Amino acid sequence: MTPAASQVFTTLLSHGPLTRAEVGRRTRLSPAAVTKAIRPLMELGYLVEGLDEEAPPAVGRPANLVWVDGGRALFIGIKVTGDEIIAVLADLCCRVRLSRHVRLTGREPEAVLPVITALVQELLTEADGFGVRVRGLGIAISGDVDRAEGVVRYSPFLEWRDVPLAEIAGTATGLPVTVDNDVRALTVAEHWFGAGVGLSDFALVTVGAGIGCGLVVHGREVAGAHGVAGEIGHLSLDPQGPLCHCGNRGCVEAIAADPAILRAVRAVTGKQVNDAAEALELAHAGEPGVREVYARAGEAIGKAIGFLVNILGPERVVISGEGLAAYDLVAEDIRDAFGVSAFGTASRCDVVTRPLPFTEWARGAAATAIQSFMGSGM
Amino acid sequence: MTPAASQVFTTLLSHGPLTRAEVGRRTRLSPAAVTKAIRPLMELGYLVEGLDEEAPPAVGRPANLVWVDGGRALFIGIKVTGDEIIAVLADLCCRVRLSRHVRLTGREPEAVLPVITALVQELLTEADGFGVRVRGLGIAISGDVDRAEGVVRYSPFLEWRDVPLAEIAGTATGLPVTVDNDVRALTVAEHWFGAGVGLSDFALVTVGAGIGCGLVVHGREVAGAHGVAGEIGHLSLDPQGPLCHCGNRGCVEAIAADPAILRAVRAVTGKQVNDAAEALELAHAGEPGVREVYARAGEAIGKAIGFLVNILGPERVVISGEGLAAYDLVAEDIRDAFGVSAFGTASRCDVVTRPLPFTEWARGAAATAIQSFMGSGM
Ligand SMILES: [Zn+2]
Ligand SMILES: [Zn+2]
Repeated sequence: MTPAASQVFTTLLSHGPLTRAEVGRRTRLSPAAVTKAIRPLMELGYLVEGLDEEAPPAVGRPANLVWVDGGRALFIGIKVTGDEIIAVLADLCCRVRLSRHVRLTGREPEAVLPVITALVQELLTEADGFGVRVRGLGIAISGDVDRAEGVVRYSPFLEWRDVPLAEIAGTATGLPVTVDNDVRALTVAEHWFGAGVGLSDFALVTVGAGIGCGLVVHGREVAGAHGVAGEIGHLSLDPQGPLCHCGNRGCVEAIAADPAILRAVRAVTGKQVNDAAEALELAHAGEPGVREVYARAGEAIGKAIGFLVNILGPERVVISGEGLAAYDLVAEDIRDAFGVSAFGTASRCDVVTRPLPFTEWARGAAATAIQSFMGSGM
Repeated sequence: MTPAASQVFTTLLSHGPLTRAEVGRRTRLSPAAVTKAIRPLMELGYLVEGLDEEAPPAVGRPANLVWVDGGRALFIGIKVTGDEIIAVLADLCCRVRLSRHVRLTGREPEAVLPVITALVQELLTEADGFGVRVRGLGIAISGDVDRAEGVVRYSPFLEWRDVPLAEIAGTATGLPVTVDNDVRALTVAEHWFGAGVGLSDFALVTVGAGIGCGLVVHGREVAGAHGVAGEIGHLSLDPQGPLCHCGNRGCVEAIAADPAILRAVRAVTGKQVNDAAEALELAHAGEPGVREVYARAGEAIGKAIGFLVNILGPERVVISGEGLAAYDLVAEDIRDAFGVSAFGTASRCDVVTRPLPFTEWARGAAATAIQSFMGSGM
């Protein structure tokens, strides 16, 4: 698919039925270029054009609209967490038709891969019921993932190293497989359907078990020339701060990710705290010192967002992730620290929060499969 | 000019005479799109096509090449520093035909503007000798500059606030004026002709009186949704560090810019040190404590580059600016700190230094004028 065709396709995905003129306006393509981009997609049945029955006929001819025919293809999206696998069956419009989730009993590839394969088989059977072919599988996984090679280089939470996941899953399922970092995949979904729609520059920051960040600049995701981008979790904010697993001190992740919060809450209370929910309970119960742990986490997140905004100047930063459960405790600290570290007019950047359940992350994985499908010439 | 035409034009600017096929390969445009982009530029005389007389005829027909006819238009580029003004007369290929520099006797707009006007008049007279019209004036100035509005919002070194420079200079000279931040302008020149040629993602970091940074992502300069981008000078690296004029502590600029180095060298030696050259002399003479000041500056620059690379993952970072005079003192500290703060494969980013004299900065200003000229439909 040409860049223009891909631009037209994602514009129609994000904005729904549009007139050709409106497609041209939004993509800044000439009428001839729009026609050229639309034609092959229409011949393949992925785009349809028709009368807008709802439009008032008073303004002359009713407008002809173009839209994506979601029912023409299906995709499977999978998000792997340390504890469970979430899978969705999505159509070409990336609408979720079905979702499943399965708890994991182990994290090693030998335990996880059969679960993925079984879930895919189940969804392929369901897809038969729709009478439409599944065209691709997207798998989203945290850590250092080489999408081009389909290899999970290093996933700290799963403790995977150099797993050729695309090849393994492709052999097991017979589908074209796209493997990507989970936050980058979620960023694609947010860009197409969420808080990033219509923005050429935005960032998604996820807080929880880790600190992640996906970036869109000039309308496209940033992948990093060497596979690293949006790595705000390991900005070392304080040379005197707590030691991080990366070897530096005072990284955002060493202050504001769940394991760091748990460690700090245990240290300050002397209590055995088992998970993020228990730590949060102690904070809400007013246990001495616990709110301060969250305040420091909020400050680190706000400062990191300030750094990001100083460097990139996006229109909007979206904060999401399981860590949002503690948002009422940290909101003010995030805003304050962001305000202090953002330079000049950079502080005008719109910082918002959005709870995005794991099915949305799996939808992001399906979106990467749609990207690959489009890129492959279909 | 269409985006495709602008892409073709800058590709020819950077790479010189190319066959149409080569233009297509480098821009990823179809042969039809290349033809469509080239035609109007050729009709206006800005592009020419001809036989490559040097090519061996053995491989069939000699290749037809397309190139930019530099002599068809002239531009003036001006870089304003706190002490002097550097002006160049450049052709459409952004080759410098003439340069001038004038020392400033004052920094207020009333002192600087007449000097700019006089320099422009002088270069316009020179341009008459070439028999070609000057089509635009680019002015590059440090600080917060709103290019779209043509206003210098705040330039700390000149102590200018909200100066509508484009309007004033336009009225005085009769030329279309582009005003941009000086580092962004230099980034355009580096992207077209320097260490950024052919790279879709790179950063330029300038050290000296201030710490600046220009970014190119997905082949285009990053301007920032709210006018701030590449602001690495005010990343607060150390909460216990020296106070910065922005109000935060431990900013890169408060540790590594010339005024910060001077302050620290005075404090450690108790001597009256007047400028960067004197501080450097003391360091080379082995004055106790002075090398450590430079080591801290190098560490701050290296760490800031690490942060930038973690967030953006560029292919290359180019370090330049007057501060390079001290590079032998700080090179190792920059490399070490960069290596420590870059996360994982991000450390593979190519970090290089390049001395760029002020005429190159003025050439960057001329490049912004060429950009505006192309964008205006010519
Ligand atoms: Zn770390
Ligand atoms: Zn500062």
